Amino acid sequence: MALSEFELIERFFRDCGASRPDVRLGIGDDAALLECPADKLLVAALDTIVEGVHFPQGSPPASIGHRALAVNLSDLAAMGAEPAWALLALTMPSAEEAWLAEFARGLGGLARAFGVALVGGDTTSGPLSVTVQALGLIEKSSGALGRSGGAAGDVLYVSGNPGDAAAGLALEQRRLEGAAPDAARMLRERFLYPVPRVELGRQLRGHASACIDVSDGLAADAGKLAHSSGCGVELEYACLPVSEALRAAVGDGEARQLALTGGDDYELCFAVPQARTAQLERELPPAQWHYARIGRLRRESGVVLLRDGNVMDFSHPGFDHFTPRR
Amino acid sequence: MALSEFELIERFFRDCGASRPDVRLGIGDDAALLECPADKLLVAALDTIVEGVHFPQGSPPASIGHRALAVNLSDLAAMGAEPAWALLALTMPSAEEAWLAEFARGLGGLARAFGVALVGGDTTSGPLSVTVQALGLIEKSSGALGRSGGAAGDVLYVSGNPGDAAAGLALEQRRLEGAAPDAARMLRERFLYPVPRVELGRQLRGHASACIDVSDGLAADAGKLAHSSGCGVELEYACLPVSEALRAAVGDGEARQLALTGGDDYELCFAVPQARTAQLERELPPAQWHYARIGRLRRESGVVLLRDGNVMDFSHPGFDHFTPRR
Repeated sequence: MALSEFELIERFFRDCGASRPDVRLGIGDDAALLECPADKLLVAALDTIVEGVHFPQGSPPASIGHRALAVNLSDLAAMGAEPAWALLALTMPSAEEAWLAEFARGLGGLARAFGVALVGGDTTSGPLSVTVQALGLIEKSSGALGRSGGAAGDVLYVSGNPGDAAAGLALEQRRLEGAAPDAARMLRERFLYPVPRVELGRQLRGHASACIDVSDGLAADAGKLAHSSGCGVELEYACLPVSEALRAAVGDGEARQLALTGGDDYELCFAVPQARTAQLERELPPAQWHYARIGRLRRESGVVLLRDGNVMDFSHPGFDHFTPRR
Repeated sequence: MALSEFELIERFFRDCGASRPDVRLGIGDDAALLECPADKLLVAALDTIVEGVHFPQGSPPASIGHRALAVNLSDLAAMGAEPAWALLALTMPSAEEAWLAEFARGLGGLARAFGVALVGGDTTSGPLSVTVQALGLIEKSSGALGRSGGAAGDVLYVSGNPGDAAAGLALEQRRLEGAAPDAARMLRERFLYPVPRVELGRQLRGHASACIDVSDGLAADAGKLAHSSGCGVELEYACLPVSEALRAAVGDGEARQLALTGGDDYELCFAVPQARTAQLERELPPAQWHYARIGRLRRESGVVLLRDGNVMDFSHPGFDHFTPRR
């Protein structure tokens, strides 16, 4: 059954997200009207996911909806912002009701979990891709996190278990087989339904000197944080927080490789001045907030990996859309 | 030559738009940080243009960049908002420097003309499509225009010359030939480089009861405005403001048909209570602001066309991405 654009938006997206009193005018007009509190800054992120590039063809539509929003909420998390509103630009070959219902369920579930109202957007025909605009707020007084505030000597941390999502994608694509069912389910889930670290990002204001979300691989994104801060970075091979499931599925060596280069993690990598690490770890206990020390910023530029006392030059470029992937 | 995403953004987009003091953090971090004045509402629009759907394959890249921003500024114009910031999500098969330079020139030229800062976004590989997020501001005190404030009896107006852009597209696609060179150049220009009616939208606050931008064809969009306002609409065939160039290129009958159904106009269609039309036309002289009376809202729903005293039922659906086009 062919749905018009109007029917499609009414049926699947009008009540998809959270309901918020600061939305003066939401879906259904030329643009949304939103109230920004006077004591806050607006934080704006825009990210696209494309079929065959960011997710495999035939991915569960609920996962596509979830991830399109998650990758943007992860950008807000890296700034320490509180998510508020989102707009959705959905390009798809045809309007299939069952697909749309699942897509909206995935996007809407995450939106409601984080109190995000879906306030507008656009649907068009074309090859499947989804762009979400996430808008958040941050107190003017507390200041945002950013990539550029780090300094040589700062301790570097990462949240969660980088590498899990890359193994999950490999399982989805049947490039990886033989994992135990429980481990496989958990790893897949980490790729299909990443949870943006919004609350951790909020809590890191006042602790972290710099923060970035890990989307292109930990080594690459740690390198970007360091570069923006005018530093380099050294990562400790032994400190990489690989999960039991990942180790069980691919072995320890490959697990650490995926943790460094896998991508799609949507964890936070952040720097904290040495003198403030004790306070950080007291106020946000690592075991409770799920983060770990992985290295430090240093004066010399570039990314190096320390393993068994040896310094390995580590120049993996991470995921870059316009240079060939290794 | 292969450009990395980082180099690409630095080279073509960092200084692409206007520079604004209210941008605390622009391109280069996980998200942008923007200052919203306390006395204004935020106005947010998000629109995608896809190759082969919204513009023909091989379109001039400067036009693609221009149009991607213009369609969004047109949404802000329809609300009476003042544009402020934009984010760009550019998906393209490969990063060609010459193409990117032209694309950025088209987008940047329009952005600077309207004082819009480009503050962030995303570049990914995939089939060519461009999503722009436009953010604007509007005084809380004056209120925004919207689609739903019209009432039966209100006079309906449209700006510019609807239909020109559709003829321009037909010329671009060689579906239309034989037009005089000057007329053809003008019509093409109207498709390739539409100018959003931002200043007219700003001025219409306090005059218009409802407003919509004309992107899917005048009849369809006038119908949407009427529907949102709980009315129907009647359009006067003889009043349609077709341009000399369009008439010369396709003849009077086809010109009026294109004016009603063509799409891609990015003009404003707006309703004004009868009692306020004299003031409107005195304060904003139609000849100077380029708009014309084309009909009125009426109690009965639907869109009708009045021609030579006859009422024609007019049910053309306009451009809808998910139902077959006529």
